[in-house]
Amino acid sequence: MTETLPYAPAPTSPVLAGVPALQPTRLRLEDLHGSLADPVLGSMTLLNEIAGRYPEAVSFAAGRPYEDFYDLGQLHDHLARFTRHLEEDLGHTPEQSRTALFQYGHTKGLLTDLLVRYLAVDEGIAADPDAVVVTTGCQEAMILLLRALRTDERDVVLAPAPTYVGFLGAARLMEMPVRPVREGTGGMDVDDLVTQIREVRAEGLRPRACYVVPDFANPSGLSMSVADRQRLLEVAAAEGVLVIEDNPYSLFGVGTERPPTLKSLDRHQNVVYIGSFAKTAFPGARVGYIVADQPLDAVTREGGGLLADQLAKLKSFLTLNTSTVSQAIIGGRLLEHHHSMAAATRREAQVYARNLRAVLDSLDHHFPGSRSPVTWNVPGGGMFIVLTLPFEADDAMLEYSASRFGVLWTPMRHFYAGAAGSNQIRLSFSVLDPERIRLGIARLASLVHTQITQK
Amino acid sequence: MTETLPYAPAPTSPVLAGVPALQPTRLRLEDLHGSLADPVLGSMTLLNEIAGRYPEAVSFAAGRPYEDFYDLGQLHDHLARFTRHLEEDLGHTPEQSRTALFQYGHTKGLLTDLLVRYLAVDEGIAADPDAVVVTTGCQEAMILLLRALRTDERDVVLAPAPTYVGFLGAARLMEMPVRPVREGTGGMDVDDLVTQIREVRAEGLRPRACYVVPDFANPSGLSMSVADRQRLLEVAAAEGVLVIEDNPYSLFGVGTERPPTLKSLDRHQNVVYIGSFAKTAFPGARVGYIVADQPLDAVTREGGGLLADQLAKLKSFLTLNTSTVSQAIIGGRLLEHHHSMAAATRREAQVYARNLRAVLDSLDHHFPGSRSPVTWNVPGGGMFIVLTLPFEADDAMLEYSASRFGVLWTPMRHFYAGAAGSNQIRLSFSVLDPERIRLGIARLASLVHTQITQK
Repeated sequence: MTETLPYAPAPTSPVLAGVPALQPTRLRLEDLHGSLADPVLGSMTLLNEIAGRYPEAVSFAAGRPYEDFYDLGQLHDHLARFTRHLEEDLGHTPEQSRTALFQYGHTKGLLTDLLVRYLAVDEGIAADPDAVVVTTGCQEAMILLLRALRTDERDVVLAPAPTYVGFLGAARLMEMPVRPVREGTGGMDVDDLVTQIREVRAEGLRPRACYVVPDFANPSGLSMSVADRQRLLEVAAAEGVLVIEDNPYSLFGVGTERPPTLKSLDRHQNVVYIGSFAKTAFPGARVGYIVADQPLDAVTREGGGLLADQLAKLKSFLTLNTSTVSQAIIGGRLLEHHHSMAAATRREAQVYARNLRAVLDSLDHHFPGSRSPVTWNVPGGGMFIVLTLPFEADDAMLEYSASRFGVLWTPMRHFYAGAAGSNQIRLSFSVLDPERIRLGIARLASLVHTQITQK
Repeated sequence: MTETLPYAPAPTSPVLAGVPALQPTRLRLEDLHGSLADPVLGSMTLLNEIAGRYPEAVSFAAGRPYEDFYDLGQLHDHLARFTRHLEEDLGHTPEQSRTALFQYGHTKGLLTDLLVRYLAVDEGIAADPDAVVVTTGCQEAMILLLRALRTDERDVVLAPAPTYVGFLGAARLMEMPVRPVREGTGGMDVDDLVTQIREVRAEGLRPRACYVVPDFANPSGLSMSVADRQRLLEVAAAEGVLVIEDNPYSLFGVGTERPPTLKSLDRHQNVVYIGSFAKTAFPGARVGYIVADQPLDAVTREGGGLLADQLAKLKSFLTLNTSTVSQAIIGGRLLEHHHSMAAATRREAQVYARNLRAVLDSLDHHFPGSRSPVTWNVPGGGMFIVLTLPFEADDAMLEYSASRFGVLWTPMRHFYAGAAGSNQIRLSFSVLDPERIRLGIARLASLVHTQITQK
């Protein structure tokens, strides 16, 4: 630093005309990333804002887990249980346990061994421990995958329409276009997937992966048959398209039979499995994971021959690690329930089944008969049901519904990126009890009858 | 779903030739995001891998906080303290506290009120609570800012060379080129910043922001003078370039005088301040934050007129929330120390000052006089010091140093994206004690003398 170049205003600078620029720096929205002007990114904020103004309304809007069984003491118990596991099962010294919980750690996470056992017990998945990456919720899992699979503007991902807004937003952030695939009464339409893959190719684009929630999808509540799962796997392998299986709700079926996960049927290592403990433990923990056992054709300089290794490398620059304390609490919960979140969430599963029944009974009561102006699907479990109304159900109607009838729901158009679903609404029934559900459906019926009468 | 389109193999599919494709799907590295082939992303993994093979070596490599004061009981105490704060100070009912800790929450975080007080007490920053976003470590803060500021391939960010690898990697992930700015003995060279900004503009590119760590930078250990801070602010405001001030080490100065943060001097709202509790609390928490009070020229449909609101919108699709449990533990620590991390880390600051003195004394001892083959800077605090050696200090030399001399360090070239620093090494002294430091420097001296003799 010997050269001295006294600062003089750059001639190109627009600010310099009015010299002591004490105006705050103003940013124009067009100077920020394009996703920020996209309604997809704003939609959840907007819906939360509307909901926030009507705290007394019955809310079928929030896709939150039931919270009455939560107890602050659990956090301490689970944390202590996991620490014991580190020392008793893994042979850590107290100093090593302390380092594991306080310091930077392996990017793939602290929970690998417990996760592998949980995936075997609850999901029938035999996961290679090296293929597992613990993530900051399932949202980071999506971001990592979308970033990894996007090489340039020709890469495209496919997903059923409607689909989870979190996935649409993540794709927008990572600049990966989402090609919609038709959804039938049995979830994603595999025939249409084939059509879309070919159309994408015909346009000179590259279909990289198909995102799907095979069990009780958000928002539709629909599930895929075993036969469709098999066909999806065949199609994906034959077309060289990865399947991203997202599985947050599979433990919450009404019946006792659970269809196999795609990953457990995957003989081609073609499925990337992503999951979340937001519904089986609690959302605040922000713990999810990826199973990505796809081998790479070449090993990079620093080693690691699986897709999971590449995802971990991206994660080390995105969030570095997943909160150790959160991982420990999730680990403690797994340990207390013999690695089974199915065992840990028996009471929650009963609540969701009871609530779904209450929703269906109330709908039958208020909208009886085959000529009802309102129709709905009958999910086999999960947290969501979709209603088709005889009028447009947009954000303005939601505001009207909240202010005049005291009931909140989610306009389905947000899950279609605004392209469809204008007469449909999603009801989420997971945080309510049957009494509130009956009150809410009655209020919804009043809204519907008022609208029909006004027509 | 009435139409049936029986699946037939797509003629374009490469996999279909050998029909029942039970080979695992193999991914080619060139089918993944370009950043994954970049040495910047692999460098930390590689260095950790080398370090992992020499657990007995004295390690000057890891930039980790001192851990002997950590205690598992603190996690429980802090968590309980924060819960009490929610109820006693914020008037939460027990149910509201439970919801705050277990459920999804405000994207900006649970800690806003405590963070604002901490910023005032420790950093002299008067932050608008609406301008604060809690992040999953400072790494997520960088990602959010880089994503927000990147509109197309013309956007460029500036940073001193050498700079923190985490920033270089984040920029690579978000596809934002980093233009290096020269570093002098007083940290970033503001004259060269002006030169670089103009060159960037002359190339038809847009300089959006300049990333800088004004106090005890990683890796150089250098600090900027108050006069340079003032000039940097003038330049940035005049040029319409934001300053991203990253401040992880400022509490760890050897002297008692602390220079003001850029943000506390910022009269133009031109500084975005990012911070981390990794060094003042613990890395495993993964809690950082952004202060982004820049107003937008237009308010988007869902409201929010500050840059922080836009960053929160991006965050809601990246990690959704920051771990509530981690936030609570950091909050508890702030509460126990009257919102002052300076108060909370008095013992750590003494350890770092003591260790820096031990490093300097050992270096003087082994490399005395003005004709020493090894030179170094004398940082005023922090965790890092840079040595210039009379030979190339690359990854192969590191491996040799570890295997033959039992001492680990970091080749500086990784902080220059491989473009410079080939004879320099970074020593990190934060996790050691004086005895290990003396042993490590003696081993380093043996390496140096062996190399000189062989020449």
